Amino acid sequence: MENKINAITSPKGFRAAGIHCGLKKTNDLDIALILSDVPATVAGVYTQNLVKGHSLVRTISLVKKNASAKGVIINSGNANACVGTIGLEDANTIAELVAANVGCSSSDILTCSTGVIGCRLDMESIMSSIPTLTNALDYTEEAGHNAMAAIMTTDLVPKESTATIEIGGTVITISAIAKGSGMIHPNLATMISIITTDANIPSDLLQTYLSRAVSHTFNRVSVDGDTSVCDTLLIFANGAANNDIWNECSDESQLFLSALTDICTDLSKMIAKDGEGATKLIEVEVVNASSEKDAYLSILSVCRSPLCKTTIFGEDANWGRVITALGYSGAYFDPEKIDIFFGNVQVCKNGCAVLFNEDLVKEILMKDEILITIDCHMGCAYDRMWTCDFSYDYIKINGSYRS
Amino acid sequence: MENKINAITSPKGFRAAGIHCGLKKTNDLDIALILSDVPATVAGVYTQNLVKGHSLVRTISLVKKNASAKGVIINSGNANACVGTIGLEDANTIAELVAANVGCSSSDILTCSTGVIGCRLDMESIMSSIPTLTNALDYTEEAGHNAMAAIMTTDLVPKESTATIEIGGTVITISAIAKGSGMIHPNLATMISIITTDANIPSDLLQTYLSRAVSHTFNRVSVDGDTSVCDTLLIFANGAANNDIWNECSDESQLFLSALTDICTDLSKMIAKDGEGATKLIEVEVVNASSEKDAYLSILSVCRSPLCKTTIFGEDANWGRVITALGYSGAYFDPEKIDIFFGNVQVCKNGCAVLFNEDLVKEILMKDEILITIDCHMGCAYDRMWTCDFSYDYIKINGSYRS
Repeated sequence: MENKINAITSPKGFRAAGIHCGLKKTNDLDIALILSDVPATVAGVYTQNLVKGHSLVRTISLVKKNASAKGVIINSGNANACVGTIGLEDANTIAELVAANVGCSSSDILTCSTGVIGCRLDMESIMSSIPTLTNALDYTEEAGHNAMAAIMTTDLVPKESTATIEIGGTVITISAIAKGSGMIHPNLATMISIITTDANIPSDLLQTYLSRAVSHTFNRVSVDGDTSVCDTLLIFANGAANNDIWNECSDESQLFLSALTDICTDLSKMIAKDGEGATKLIEVEVVNASSEKDAYLSILSVCRSPLCKTTIFGEDANWGRVITALGYSGAYFDPEKIDIFFGNVQVCKNGCAVLFNEDLVKEILMKDEILITIDCHMGCAYDRMWTCDFSYDYIKINGSYRS
Repeated sequence: MENKINAITSPKGFRAAGIHCGLKKTNDLDIALILSDVPATVAGVYTQNLVKGHSLVRTISLVKKNASAKGVIINSGNANACVGTIGLEDANTIAELVAANVGCSSSDILTCSTGVIGCRLDMESIMSSIPTLTNALDYTEEAGHNAMAAIMTTDLVPKESTATIEIGGTVITISAIAKGSGMIHPNLATMISIITTDANIPSDLLQTYLSRAVSHTFNRVSVDGDTSVCDTLLIFANGAANNDIWNECSDESQLFLSALTDICTDLSKMIAKDGEGATKLIEVEVVNASSEKDAYLSILSVCRSPLCKTTIFGEDANWGRVITALGYSGAYFDPEKIDIFFGNVQVCKNGCAVLFNEDLVKEILMKDEILITIDCHMGCAYDRMWTCDFSYDYIKINGSYRS
């Protein structure tokens, strides 16, 4: 796997743009467009929140109906959610103008919105900026980076990942961008992520790949336990690489899925590490759990526990909070068999305190990436999740988000 | 209902004491004893955490076996949890010495511990202080307040509530103390609460009362979603009031249950309000939910959401986070029927934003008690829960708890 340029425009036949239209009170970029030269196969994974944003509702319906589209327009600063029937109308109006400007059907333009809930989109600003946005579309790395910048809300760093693989002499590129960074929890998050690839893949196989890649990557990130109403992950495969269609059970298929999963893993870790107010990336893994369900419940509980997350922020080896979170997780285990490690140092053996070198653990906890391993000694199930610590800044950011 | 003195010693025939034995690094009181003159009927409700502290395991087993005891010794500063078989031995040793000093069987002395997990109790300090503790036992209000002070960990304020009722000319007193204030979530919390009453009540009825009173009081408090390994609620009824035994279906029974529930409500609100770092008490109520389960899932999700809790800390009327938390709660509802109120001001109607007076809502959010009401317009189920806001101080307190 070799990375060329790292931008959503890396795969052949994709252009992008990101400009400022006025939705953000700062001068930051706030509207993005990603467009394939030709209609692309599309698959998606969406929030499981019962409440869904209007732009997202439109996208879900179009992907379900057509499994094909040319592009997606994404605004930050406003979620276009909980505003009534006008919300869907606004999303349609925006897509129509984009389509008219780039010369396609409005059903070929998907829509995503992220930001504050319950305020109507500032349509005047958006509509008047669309000509500038479509004019700015370009194949360059810079254009890709601009699209990334325009979907950020409280993110501090852009999140981009690109991979190239060679299949039967044909080079295939996959690239992705993602935004976090609050309301992040399994079954997606306040997350929007767009993946482009020039691979030639039928839509049902594309959906299979996406769902598999998500299950142990984006569905294993928790920042604060909140799941938003706008979470979306879309993949566009435009076939520009001209590869032969491969069989689902082939080596080629495995290679593609593996590259896609790597990209999703990259972005998932970036999202956790850039969680609102985060100072550390925490990876929680459970080994030898009774069952896959018990493994999942265990990591979910630890990753969600404010007490575990503040302990890591405070660089305090308080493993009692980890075993406590396991205890109320709903997972089945024998408390007297639990081992816990911070980094490679064991802090709990058979559910009891072990004498450990506090200085050594302190050194581990001072790093910006912390691994917590829980060994249940019950069965052979494994799972892993990423989260971040809870800091003063999480409170600061979220105490005044609307203002 | 008339309150006399407000201390755990208010009911007839109960003495208490609280002293400093050295478990807390400060000079604060850290060990308490509450003792009935005669064996009392006892009932209990305990943490559902799979991991349980050793002092608690001993208490659960004794209450189950005997449903009777004379008293309870409680230490703060150390949870006596996850230290292996020595933990249970230590609890037994402590109870034996107390029993020898007050002249009863060790099985009449229950044990509770709260504090850090995974460190063995400092037995030398505890054992050498027990004579002083038993000597300090007294019927006074001051002795009761000392016992309360000695069970506090990160609590900022003592939590005591007392009620007297008259039944057929007999005055019955019920009094309770409780500690919070982190690891607080339904199915008890890091909570320890002891209730004394001089009522004469058979043990099975006492257990029924306690379980009923808890269900919509202590089981409706969430501070941080964490449930500890030591949570305990015990009630001692020593019969010193000499009332006739009443029938479960009588008015007398209703009167007692109602007074007990009021006391538990009082303490529950105090615990939420004194949650670690809390600046505000938040009451979340849902009306017209589809079912009791949906009502409970709804309030639980909102009370647990760090985003909702930071919004209230920031005094920001961001109701979008409330509807988002409802959406991922697992409760069934129609998003287009949801109404949300902050205090008495409607901020969301039929799942959409309504224009509201921001100044008026700001005024409501600046108060130290906030009511959030959610009307689902689905059925007739109601539920209510208390939580607190998430502040900088929660992070500060929990970033360095062990140190």
